[in-house]
Amino acid sequence: MRRLEVVRQKDFSPEDSAILKINPPLVAGWLVDFLRDEIIRRRGFQKAVVGLSGGVDSSLTAFLCARALGPENVVGVRMPYRTSSRESLDHAALVVEALGIPSLTIDISDAVDGYLRHDPGADGRRRGNVMARMRMIILFDQSAKHRALPVGTGNKTERLFGYFTWHADDSPPVNPLGDLFKTQVWALARHMGVPEVIVSKPASADLVAGQTDEGDFGILYEKADRILAQLLKGYSPQRLADMGFEPSDIALVKGRLDSTHWKRHLPTVAMLSSTSIEDYYLRPVDY
Amino acid sequence: MRRLEVVRQKDFSPEDSAILKINPPLVAGWLVDFLRDEIIRRRGFQKAVVGLSGGVDSSLTAFLCARALGPENVVGVRMPYRTSSRESLDHAALVVEALGIPSLTIDISDAVDGYLRHDPGADGRRRGNVMARMRMIILFDQSAKHRALPVGTGNKTERLFGYFTWHADDSPPVNPLGDLFKTQVWALARHMGVPEVIVSKPASADLVAGQTDEGDFGILYEKADRILAQLLKGYSPQRLADMGFEPSDIALVKGRLDSTHWKRHLPTVAMLSSTSIEDYYLRPVDY
Repeated sequence: MRRLEVVRQKDFSPEDSAILKINPPLVAGWLVDFLRDEIIRRRGFQKAVVGLSGGVDSSLTAFLCARALGPENVVGVRMPYRTSSRESLDHAALVVEALGIPSLTIDISDAVDGYLRHDPGADGRRRGNVMARMRMIILFDQSAKHRALPVGTGNKTERLFGYFTWHADDSPPVNPLGDLFKTQVWALARHMGVPEVIVSKPASADLVAGQTDEGDFGILYEKADRILAQLLKGYSPQRLADMGFEPSDIALVKGRLDSTHWKRHLPTVAMLSSTSIEDYYLRPVDY
Repeated sequence: MRRLEVVRQKDFSPEDSAILKINPPLVAGWLVDFLRDEIIRRRGFQKAVVGLSGGVDSSLTAFLCARALGPENVVGVRMPYRTSSRESLDHAALVVEALGIPSLTIDISDAVDGYLRHDPGADGRRRGNVMARMRMIILFDQSAKHRALPVGTGNKTERLFGYFTWHADDSPPVNPLGDLFKTQVWALARHMGVPEVIVSKPASADLVAGQTDEGDFGILYEKADRILAQLLKGYSPQRLADMGFEPSDIALVKGRLDSTHWKRHLPTVAMLSSTSIEDYYLRPVDY
């Protein structure tokens, strides 16, 4: 009995992160191929534009794009607001330097404040969403200027948690990281040579000083990713509890997942005909 | 022979717009039900926020929302840029007055210029896209302020033509008009009592003085809608030519349709697992 229990705990231990294991060289190779295929062959662009926040997702995306397209074809854009941390800017500069990519810095303060002046009482959440969307505007506009496709940086954990501003971080037409959990992004970033200071710092949206993703969530990525991976495989909360995960952690993760499905879908359009777009009128290839 | 030809021409005449005929009271009733169901029952909101451009799409949307939720629960937002036409503002005011809905006016000039100042050489197309997206930012932010769901106004013709700014006009989570061609919007707007001056003026994005949709397209809505409706039914360009449509008109419409499929889809995410979002991990109900 005792022995069986030990085996069972070993098999399903919540500490076991085998479910999140990736083969970094293989994944890097496939993502580089993906970027070449989507950007060059399918969409006819030679260049990409990436918003560099100084965080690991956008840094890794720039590394992948540089390998896929050549560093001279990746435009890195830093878009600080006046309260953004100096460190974020510096870390973005590290990426630009490490890759030797062209870069530009556009301060979003005047644009953001040009609107928020109309509504000075807006809280931190509203201000953060305005900033995130302003960066989207600039990324798309610089895309038009440089004939460079915007490349997205959202990872699977934040997409499943709905931890992004709708029509902002999730908006670029191509995204290499969207099926990688955050802990897998860290592994791939280390393999690709993203500066360690960027990989090992606590992840943060940098909208408020001291803010961290894990503080916002109330759970560590290491734990959240393992729970998400099991839930997506179809396991029930009860089964996860049997594996040894804390019921409160499971409830937290499932709650975020269930309450944010709308953010992962196109808008709902009233259907009136037998040729309504998406519902009946579909194309196998979307460009 | 002669008689047959006449019959054939009558059956398939390009002047015959039976394919676009709607039953306005029936459509209005269904769209009002749709709005109540999506906004109140499924999403738990009591209010809607609609950006009022002074054009027929947003005017009709406001009329439908007012009937669905009560006028006091529809916030109309006018968002002029300093070059927007006075007439657009006045027409939006007509709607506010006709419905008796609360409204506000937020000038986007400071926000738009706060960014464009960094890039004074931006052409009209880029400037127009920045303005359209800035209005999206404000609509979503006012949504958060008023606890009111943003309601979309894009019609089927512009969605099929890709005649909208990505992540701007197409961004609200609920859209009642997206399966109605522009000519059907006109018919429904007349039925709902949208002021005739708004219904009968030439449609325009009002980004440049004198701009009209039909001028941008190079074809009238009456003709474009009929060609689109036939193409979506699956008829070939050759079959449309046999019906009497001009080959150049067919080519123009089909060209627009085929080149803008990417605007009607979610971004492309690299697939790495058997639980990639959208591809494998789906939910039947999206909220």
